[in-house]
Amino acid sequence: MGKDSGSGRHGRILVINPNSTEAVTHGIDAAMDPFRFADGPEFDCVTLAGGPPGIETQRHVDAAVGPICDMIEREDNAADAFVIACFSDPGLLSARETTRKPVFGIGAASYSAALLLGEKFGVIAILPASVERQRRAVRVMGLDARYAASLPVGIGPASLDGDAVAGRMIEVGRALIDRHGADVLIMGCAGMARHRAAVEQALGVPVIDPTQAAAAQAVAAVRLGGRS
Amino acid sequence: MGKDSGSGRHGRILVINPNSTEAVTHGIDAAMDPFRFADGPEFDCVTLAGGPPGIETQRHVDAAVGPICDMIEREDNAADAFVIACFSDPGLLSARETTRKPVFGIGAASYSAALLLGEKFGVIAILPASVERQRRAVRVMGLDARYAASLPVGIGPASLDGDAVAGRMIEVGRALIDRHGADVLIMGCAGMARHRAAVEQALGVPVIDPTQAAAAQAVAAVRLGGRS
Amino acid sequence: MGKDSGSGRHGRILVINPNSTEAVTHGIDAAMDPFRFADGPEFDCVTLAGGPPGIETQRHVDAAVGPICDMIEREDNAADAFVIACFSDPGLLSARETTRKPVFGIGAASYSAALLLGEKFGVIAILPASVERQRRAVRVMGLDARYAASLPVGIGPASLDGDAVAGRMIEVGRALIDRHGADVLIMGCAGMARHRAAVEQALGVPVIDPTQAAAAQAVAAVRLGGRS
Amino acid sequence: MGKDSGSGRHGRILVINPNSTEAVTHGIDAAMDPFRFADGPEFDCVTLAGGPPGIETQRHVDAAVGPICDMIEREDNAADAFVIACFSDPGLLSARETTRKPVFGIGAASYSAALLLGEKFGVIAILPASVERQRRAVRVMGLDARYAASLPVGIGPASLDGDAVAGRMIEVGRALIDRHGADVLIMGCAGMARHRAAVEQALGVPVIDPTQAAAAQAVAAVRLGGRS
Amino acid sequence: MGKDSGSGRHGRILVINPNSTEAVTHGIDAAMDPFRFADGPEFDCVTLAGGPPGIETQRHVDAAVGPICDMIEREDNAADAFVIACFSDPGLLSARETTRKPVFGIGAASYSAALLLGEKFGVIAILPASVERQRRAVRVMGLDARYAASLPVGIGPASLDGDAVAGRMIEVGRALIDRHGADVLIMGCAGMARHRAAVEQALGVPVIDPTQAAAAQAVAAVRLGGRS
Amino acid sequence: MGKDSGSGRHGRILVINPNSTEAVTHGIDAAMDPFRFADGPEFDCVTLAGGPPGIETQRHVDAAVGPICDMIEREDNAADAFVIACFSDPGLLSARETTRKPVFGIGAASYSAALLLGEKFGVIAILPASVERQRRAVRVMGLDARYAASLPVGIGPASLDGDAVAGRMIEVGRALIDRHGADVLIMGCAGMARHRAAVEQALGVPVIDPTQAAAAQAVAAVRLGGRS
Repeated sequence: MGKDSGSGRHGRILVINPNSTEAVTHGIDAAMDPFRFADGPEFDCVTLAGGPPGIETQRHVDAAVGPICDMIEREDNAADAFVIACFSDPGLLSARETTRKPVFGIGAASYSAALLLGEKFGVIAILPASVERQRRAVRVMGLDARYAASLPVGIGPASLDGDAVAGRMIEVGRALIDRHGADVLIMGCAGMARHRAAVEQALGVPVIDPTQAAAAQAVAAVRLGGRS
Repeated sequence: MGKDSGSGRHGRILVINPNSTEAVTHGIDAAMDPFRFADGPEFDCVTLAGGPPGIETQRHVDAAVGPICDMIEREDNAADAFVIACFSDPGLLSARETTRKPVFGIGAASYSAALLLGEKFGVIAILPASVERQRRAVRVMGLDARYAASLPVGIGPASLDGDAVAGRMIEVGRALIDRHGADVLIMGCAGMARHRAAVEQALGVPVIDPTQAAAAQAVAAVRLGGRS
Repeated sequence: MGKDSGSGRHGRILVINPNSTEAVTHGIDAAMDPFRFADGPEFDCVTLAGGPPGIETQRHVDAAVGPICDMIEREDNAADAFVIACFSDPGLLSARETTRKPVFGIGAASYSAALLLGEKFGVIAILPASVERQRRAVRVMGLDARYAASLPVGIGPASLDGDAVAGRMIEVGRALIDRHGADVLIMGCAGMARHRAAVEQALGVPVIDPTQAAAAQAVAAVRLGGRS
Repeated sequence: MGKDSGSGRHGRILVINPNSTEAVTHGIDAAMDPFRFADGPEFDCVTLAGGPPGIETQRHVDAAVGPICDMIEREDNAADAFVIACFSDPGLLSARETTRKPVFGIGAASYSAALLLGEKFGVIAILPASVERQRRAVRVMGLDARYAASLPVGIGPASLDGDAVAGRMIEVGRALIDRHGADVLIMGCAGMARHRAAVEQALGVPVIDPTQAAAAQAVAAVRLGGRS
Repeated sequence: MGKDSGSGRHGRILVINPNSTEAVTHGIDAAMDPFRFADGPEFDCVTLAGGPPGIETQRHVDAAVGPICDMIEREDNAADAFVIACFSDPGLLSARETTRKPVFGIGAASYSAALLLGEKFGVIAILPASVERQRRAVRVMGLDARYAASLPVGIGPASLDGDAVAGRMIEVGRALIDRHGADVLIMGCAGMARHRAAVEQALGVPVIDPTQAAAAQAVAAVRLGGRS
Repeated sequence: MGKDSGSGRHGRILVINPNSTEAVTHGIDAAMDPFRFADGPEFDCVTLAGGPPGIETQRHVDAAVGPICDMIEREDNAADAFVIACFSDPGLLSARETTRKPVFGIGAASYSAALLLGEKFGVIAILPASVERQRRAVRVMGLDARYAASLPVGIGPASLDGDAVAGRMIEVGRALIDRHGADVLIMGCAGMARHRAAVEQALGVPVIDPTQAAAAQAVAAVRLGGRS
């Protein structure tokens, strides 16, 4: 990655993909383009060596924490903000103990952004097991009153590239709108990045890419001086 | 205003100060600088002619809706996103009926941003009458579980320039932290912009300028294509 | 209107219909009859000149605030309490800054009354756009735990006189009961007044006319001396 | 009691005081006067023979249910609505199984009315043991978001006549306002009726007499035809 | 009952079935077996003489309180803890005023236990009228966020012995899982005890017998010394 | 440990202390005694080799997950239930993916138990940093309505043996009761076990040892056949 790894004098945001699927990191990297400015912070998107192909279980989530914190420690002097690019926000709290730089989880950032774009947010999840994690995440955020539901597409995080994926996401999104009253949708996986425009166009409601939601916050944090 | 009113080919965000105090608009304009990029959207900060010197009562809030919507209608072709720069978010819902461009209220944007920076947010309000409005706003956002309290500085929106203001804000902020458990603070008025750094430095917790919180969202919305 | 505009020595309640549809005002006026006593406060039902035929959008709601407050100011010496007879409660908070007399919104009064008549209330809304407003109103009231749902009949406020309306309201009411667990219903528009008895008889659960809910509170406030 | 026990042709509301303290029933009876109209329903206030001097414990509450339901059964043909005049609402749900006539509890009616008169309600309780019951009642009503607190005066229900009582109520009310943010107060016992005006005048916020709150609802129910 | 009524030196837990159906008491008694240890507290399961065959209405619930408290008073010296074996928890609060020994209601104990076994609990209720009581109980427990729904089997408490009952419970349980998102189920009546294993096996999620949930707490309370 | 490691034919519960302080494990072991029956499941309390002396930070919590799951995997055939004896419930969800045997976290078990013993629970925390974790845990449990507060004693988990500790816990407990309205207390660390009786006696409200709360649930799960 790191196509904008230049002087770094405007700040550098490290985006960590905790799974080992390079295609996901490439998708994330492309999704960062709207947040790259000539005189703005660069975005470096990296794959966490040794992670599983996708974060599918709670054990995957928990196992990612150590390596994420290790990477943050190594990069602390070279980065001005961090984004943990997994919707389950693995290690978000531990990361904040590890660095004084701002750290954003893409799950939390998505929920926060959704509040400004509609009344009730729904989440297009990857797998059924993700749904319970998202319910808990919404509860720990204190956002039950704004949550429509999560519904899974039934496709693992390492297989989100296929052509049929957008179609399946649109089906699930429509169910969130029609049956659960959602008027804004969140894509529940960093690996769905490339499908955002297609899903938004098909459904006519705002669709949030979680890494982009975090990127907006990270740019602001870097420009405002962070808290380091 | 409009010091970056250039070609507009990168997008233009109109920031509307609904009160008639030019000093407040100047403060907002300066606060937008971190969000101005060489190849990013420009920020135009305008004062709503004919407004009261400060939005202090609910009647002020309600009376501002019509003029805000009128301005949005006039500017709709020339702007890519709108920010309503009053913490009471006057006319936010009406504005969304008026334009298909993204519209952000600085109150809602602040509450949303605070969720990512701490456990409990407190609001440094201007006047006692603001407190009830903020309680209602937090409830309509569905964020009661994350709300510490609002406490007023007792200084009207047109008098926030004085040297003693930061000191009073620090006092109130400390009470929000010590007595109400806040670990992130929101400045409850666009006119407090110039005091953010001083308050944050004195108190050691994140302090959110509401217009900056909305600016981050507006930049993202413009870059991602909005919903027009 | 004003068929009981007599001496006023027992108090006078001004009921303001903020839309310009006289048929709605007539329906409201008839609905006030059960609250008219020989020695009780009179009810004067007035149409707000210049309003839209129906309050259908948020812009309508916000645009009604100024004229409502102007009327309250003009009538302040001649009235002992005010009822704002639009389910969106336009200007309720501004009105309370305008007069020291008690002011009741028919939306808030309905939600309050429903708590005493059942476990879960459902709202028979007029238009799909009303539903979001009602969700927000319920949230700002803090009543989410008692709210079943809102479902629209799909008929605008100026067309609620037709014979088919009660039938459509019964259909929607039944869906609120059967699919959303409502055991008390609120009619979500002052213009539905004449259909209350028919809907209640058909469905077998309490059905609240919102203006009547506010009338009960207004009579009590006048008799207890108000807060003037 | 029964000073207005006349023809009953306009309806009759039976107000049941479940304790045996006649002075409390007299106070309630006087508090009903504002709701007595020449052509309105009469109010009959009765003392439940054999009750304790005051409902102070949960056992008192539970023990009152049977006698209350027995009285309602006996009076069912002669009454158009019932009010259970104890703030703990003993037997409210059982009473609704006993008669098809409307039944109102003064606790529930007070909480409902308070929603229309302020942002946060506080309760002037009689004894410390009442506080837990009120917390549970507020929770079962689903009104936590609007509840400031309950504070006890420390005077039993049979001793509320004394001259010092209003003074103590004012002290407690002021604490609810100053320390807990209440802006509307509920008197937590039917036996406090005579002190309402004094407390309201001293504190400058609305003060609700619970039996009056229920009376307003009962008059409306009788006039609207009840649900019998 | 009382097959383990021995020396009592290890403590004695009195389980009170407030209905008069002996078959229910027998079912409860058998359900206590897993909590009987050689050196643990004995469980004595008794039928409340004179109760109705089943607690089906609120009047039944309220009428049971006096006799339950009377029995607790009589047995206070001979028992170390009490279990009120009716899912509506009749007299739980009054019982706690009656004895200093620990008292557990099987409804409250079930809700508490369910929190540890899944994300959302559903209740297999007996009759439609039970559903409202359970909604209120969940609200007074403060557990709305974890509650899926209650659905009735439509069989009274005195008829739960039949062979078809388990089948009907499985149907209802599946609806709670599939349509309401429950992942742990509570049997909403002490009289369902014998069907627990069959329902759990058929549905593949934890199924809680309410009396067993209370038994676990009662054993712990006795072993830890209670609060007497 | 393992003083009751016998035949195991009645079941075996493995209690895992994830910190390396043996004194804590000894305290836990003693606290299990009331749950040891002649014919009941044995309790084996083990120290997680290689853990930190105390779980004080989120990094400690997250770092414990892997070793806890490894131990559960190794012991899965030899145990019938697991208790994770750290109040932060490290790895509770991952553990449930690791084994089909029941797993209980002592934090969750405590919150659940507290619901049955009082209206509002307060937590005697160890360090200020624990408080935020507890707030989040309460929110993810959905128990905000029953939570008074957490207050720290300011003593790390490895220093809880000292004579002054009970005194400090009593001070903090009294503040939870007097200033925050708690009527039941939870000890927020497994290492506080030995002080339970002293604190309960001094304060006169129920005091919950978290490992005991989990033990009660684990015994029940083993006796009822678990879900293996």
